[in-house]
Amino acid sequence: MKVMTKKIENIAVLTSGGDAPGMNAAIRAVVRACSFYQLKCTGIYRGYQGLIEADFEDLDARSVRNIINKGGTFLKSTRSMEFKTKEGRKKAYDNLVKEGVDAMVVIGGDGTFTGAEYFSQEFNFPIVGIPATIDNDINGTDYTLGYDTALNTVVEAIDKIRDTASSHNRLFLVEVMGRDAGDIALNSGIGAGAEEILIPEEETGVERMIESLRRSKKAGKTSSIIVVAEGEKSGKNIFELARFIEENLDEYEIRVSVLGHIQRGGSPSCFDRVLASKLGVGAVEALMEGKTEVMIGIHHQKVVHVNLQTAIKGDAKIDKELRRVADITSV
Amino acid sequence: MKVMTKKIENIAVLTSGGDAPGMNAAIRAVVRACSFYQLKCTGIYRGYQGLIEADFEDLDARSVRNIINKGGTFLKSTRSMEFKTKEGRKKAYDNLVKEGVDAMVVIGGDGTFTGAEYFSQEFNFPIVGIPATIDNDINGTDYTLGYDTALNTVVEAIDKIRDTASSHNRLFLVEVMGRDAGDIALNSGIGAGAEEILIPEEETGVERMIESLRRSKKAGKTSSIIVVAEGEKSGKNIFELARFIEENLDEYEIRVSVLGHIQRGGSPSCFDRVLASKLGVGAVEALMEGKTEVMIGIHHQKVVHVNLQTAIKGDAKIDKELRRVADITSV
Amino acid sequence: MKVMTKKIENIAVLTSGGDAPGMNAAIRAVVRACSFYQLKCTGIYRGYQGLIEADFEDLDARSVRNIINKGGTFLKSTRSMEFKTKEGRKKAYDNLVKEGVDAMVVIGGDGTFTGAEYFSQEFNFPIVGIPATIDNDINGTDYTLGYDTALNTVVEAIDKIRDTASSHNRLFLVEVMGRDAGDIALNSGIGAGAEEILIPEEETGVERMIESLRRSKKAGKTSSIIVVAEGEKSGKNIFELARFIEENLDEYEIRVSVLGHIQRGGSPSCFDRVLASKLGVGAVEALMEGKTEVMIGIHHQKVVHVNLQTAIKGDAKIDKELRRVADITSV
Amino acid sequence: MKVMTKKIENIAVLTSGGDAPGMNAAIRAVVRACSFYQLKCTGIYRGYQGLIEADFEDLDARSVRNIINKGGTFLKSTRSMEFKTKEGRKKAYDNLVKEGVDAMVVIGGDGTFTGAEYFSQEFNFPIVGIPATIDNDINGTDYTLGYDTALNTVVEAIDKIRDTASSHNRLFLVEVMGRDAGDIALNSGIGAGAEEILIPEEETGVERMIESLRRSKKAGKTSSIIVVAEGEKSGKNIFELARFIEENLDEYEIRVSVLGHIQRGGSPSCFDRVLASKLGVGAVEALMEGKTEVMIGIHHQKVVHVNLQTAIKGDAKIDKELRRVADITSV
Repeated sequence: MKVMTKKIENIAVLTSGGDAPGMNAAIRAVVRACSFYQLKCTGIYRGYQGLIEADFEDLDARSVRNIINKGGTFLKSTRSMEFKTKEGRKKAYDNLVKEGVDAMVVIGGDGTFTGAEYFSQEFNFPIVGIPATIDNDINGTDYTLGYDTALNTVVEAIDKIRDTASSHNRLFLVEVMGRDAGDIALNSGIGAGAEEILIPEEETGVERMIESLRRSKKAGKTSSIIVVAEGEKSGKNIFELARFIEENLDEYEIRVSVLGHIQRGGSPSCFDRVLASKLGVGAVEALMEGKTEVMIGIHHQKVVHVNLQTAIKGDAKIDKELRRVADITSV
Repeated sequence: MKVMTKKIENIAVLTSGGDAPGMNAAIRAVVRACSFYQLKCTGIYRGYQGLIEADFEDLDARSVRNIINKGGTFLKSTRSMEFKTKEGRKKAYDNLVKEGVDAMVVIGGDGTFTGAEYFSQEFNFPIVGIPATIDNDINGTDYTLGYDTALNTVVEAIDKIRDTASSHNRLFLVEVMGRDAGDIALNSGIGAGAEEILIPEEETGVERMIESLRRSKKAGKTSSIIVVAEGEKSGKNIFELARFIEENLDEYEIRVSVLGHIQRGGSPSCFDRVLASKLGVGAVEALMEGKTEVMIGIHHQKVVHVNLQTAIKGDAKIDKELRRVADITSV
Repeated sequence: MKVMTKKIENIAVLTSGGDAPGMNAAIRAVVRACSFYQLKCTGIYRGYQGLIEADFEDLDARSVRNIINKGGTFLKSTRSMEFKTKEGRKKAYDNLVKEGVDAMVVIGGDGTFTGAEYFSQEFNFPIVGIPATIDNDINGTDYTLGYDTALNTVVEAIDKIRDTASSHNRLFLVEVMGRDAGDIALNSGIGAGAEEILIPEEETGVERMIESLRRSKKAGKTSSIIVVAEGEKSGKNIFELARFIEENLDEYEIRVSVLGHIQRGGSPSCFDRVLASKLGVGAVEALMEGKTEVMIGIHHQKVVHVNLQTAIKGDAKIDKELRRVADITSV
Repeated sequence: MKVMTKKIENIAVLTSGGDAPGMNAAIRAVVRACSFYQLKCTGIYRGYQGLIEADFEDLDARSVRNIINKGGTFLKSTRSMEFKTKEGRKKAYDNLVKEGVDAMVVIGGDGTFTGAEYFSQEFNFPIVGIPATIDNDINGTDYTLGYDTALNTVVEAIDKIRDTASSHNRLFLVEVMGRDAGDIALNSGIGAGAEEILIPEEETGVERMIESLRRSKKAGKTSSIIVVAEGEKSGKNIFELARFIEENLDEYEIRVSVLGHIQRGGSPSCFDRVLASKLGVGAVEALMEGKTEVMIGIHHQKVVHVNLQTAIKGDAKIDKELRRVADITSV
């Protein structure tokens, strides 16, 4: 791990990429930790694009009052094409120097970290990352910010759908987020009592699902919920999947529900608020210790430092034990 | 209004059509009122189909413990093709006679009431209806069961979407239920602070929306929510609508969210639980007074009796005053 | 009703007294309506005290973005002793004149309206009131702002308590707000399926409760919820009431829960948000029409103007029909 | 760890002690795992008392439909004096033998485990425990069932209180559960953004609180939330504590809120539902492997077996790192 010796007096913070519940709580913790250690804190609006446009604001402990419970990010987040160019990053660096910023905390997912890694090396500028994405697809941390909240949002939505499913003896296909990682689908599927769960990490989900629905029908189940991750591997979208089931199992009346963007919003759970507080404090302290190019993660309930390169190489693996629990509890 | 003189000693209750939050609370009130007046109460499972199949169960005050707060309907609901045939209805009637049932409470929407009206006349059998549908599209009652709960579900969902919309400066199109009636869209649109609301009762919604988005953009609004009722009149589905906006207003990044079946589920609001209690008690008392072919509705906070024929002739009219409030508060 | 002819160009708005969910939504509607009609809008912080201290801020449509769903009041609320003195009110008036304010909207309960009535007459200054209090104890309006939200908060809390009550076969006494009015207790009691409800408007609640618990026990009920309004008339506080029951009915294990201030907070329900929007628009339009010393209320789903004097004379009457429904559904 | 060789064909399950959200989900997982492994499953109502009274019911996969999301425990829970006597336990054992039960899963806290340990040794009867208590005060498991849900309930309640606190510039003392363990107070206090947190594990909380409030006042904070665990060590109850603050810091208007039993109820969070599913499956599998007198816990996200004796010796230690995070983020 790299260590730098530059004295840190002014730390900037930004959010980037898809927003996640807990981003505000993390910003708050960064700001409060700066305040606690008597450092300046500079808020950057609209992620890397705002950095290029010098969209800055001084933040103090009062600036972040009453935001710990708010979804989204008050610093806003955008994708920046310009930051992918050398000129864009040069402007960004010049702005930081001009503003007197010594180090930066970036809150986001792997895209955010890739940009940070690049920028940090190019300009030898201290940066640490805080993992925030509802997908939980970052290496080296047990949890990413927003994931726990998204799980609760999903199970609450499916609880509502189950009311109507069981009133009508229907089969519902519910699409949840997760292009590459099945964590949301697998956990929310267990939590919502789904009969089957289709995830990107498995190839044969659809065949197994048809089998499982046949068994359920025989066993007298009259309504069912199937949770389907966006990135599921059948090559069918969820509406095609519904037709496929109707063609293969004619006795079901099927409905589709795509949960969509409600999964990204909402007041963060206590878990995410506490996690955000730990990671935000950990980020400021890591920078004060001269760390850079690391992500502040949580592992076995302790704050850990993970090289950004390691964190980015997301190579999501399915939790086989959890898969087994899903199979057993859905009999 | 028809009045019958037959002594009522056993009242059956069923739910039919699309389920709505508060149906369980209404069943409970019917059962408890029977218990209070020392009448027998017979639960019919799966609506008119269960009636044809004699899927009955005796219900007493204890049968309905701890269900006032549950979404859906524990008596289940189905659509019955057989009930549309003379043979089907004859079987249904014979079952009621055999079971000793003297009168019936049907909980549902206009399809349910149409069946009830027909059946009641055909066999001179006392029936009253309780309006339960999230769409609020029944004549003669200010509110239908489930409508208030659905509104809360919708605004909570849009609150979450707004978190992510305003983090990213995006425009969201949110589709809510309402094929013929814009009540959900109009009220939830005001409640969620939507910039525009498209409803089935208006022809020129899309043009106005484009105008309104142009104005908003000029006024510096960076994110927006448009609430769109299913039955909106542009002839475009919501995804086509999104493309249409992108073609006409290139500066917006647009996302679509279809709220779908979560709107039908969930624990009923206090309003719907109290309404269900009033209507359930009112239904039993109406039958005891010899009433039939009436719907028990609520008007100006009082329980009223409305001829089923009047109730069915849904001729939804937009609340112009509310439309005006929507326009003013979205400037 | 008084009508004034002064041209209105600048309307001030304040919140006063106990806060209620929906106050922010009402402020937003006032501000947006001013914007719609091209009037200036002046926000007054901290109610009448802020008026005396000229704690003002210009508000425009953007100032009130994203607050429709927030509990509390961003303008804050205090009780002002100084406003009860002639000197205090004179200062307040001078501040309004200096600021160029022509009229005022006050959002609050009867205390707020009493102050407004006094001030309006003393200085011939146009004022309209918006009823906002969770207690629903204002004359001339079917609903006050915050009441519907508070009912939902209470039933959700009691739903949680019922989980533990029925797991343990316990009797719970749950205290809800309402010093003079039993509306919260009666409606939430029905909505939460309470076995008994004690309200300020009835003298003999305790005797009836003991009777009802005896009957319940015989009927085999093993757990029970009693909802008790703060202002209940037994002369016993809720802990004394619990002891009293234990002494008279030894077979119950009793627990007490005082819901307290959670009832005042939380994101407003859709009902309260729409109501706030109607009343806020109605308040600005009433002032534009030259009205003064009126409350903008809702009656039979229409906006109405009620003399402030009438509104204040709260003379809460129990809804006997609702009491009857409560008795029947709790058998 | 003890291992038994008896073949397991019928597993009983009960819940005992204070109820916690997730108990139903755990029962469901036990039942489903039995079904998966083709074992009989016997439900015991009302904990050890129901065991003594042979209050049994056969449970199969269908018996536990639609309960994963319900708070409380459908098997009910009581405290049993009789089970503390040799005679009581003998009756219990005879009932199990008569019913053909080979092993037992007990779901509860340390009182439940103490009884289980005793009984298991006395009759050489295989028992495993599942830790369920909102207090998170069991050794050898990172989380107990219900704890995560209770934290969310508490932060949601305090979010509501904060609405009214910040509208009125008030100081609120909020009492949360935790007689011996400060986990709920510490985590919910961080999550709710409390200014101070008083926990049983610290002696000098009150002095620090007074200091911290003095600092806050100087720094311009106008409202504050103090979270107080029941078992806090000042020797004052929360009302006395409020008076104590008023005497020492006269500028505050103080309100007290005791959250009470709402903390035990409510629909379990996704985290608790998944945890319950893992522990329930783990319990059945442990019994099948011949394990006894162990608790099935979770450590570093894996299911672990912990001797009941170790689990019981709760020797709660404060998480110093979390205390530090609380201090830093509340500046």
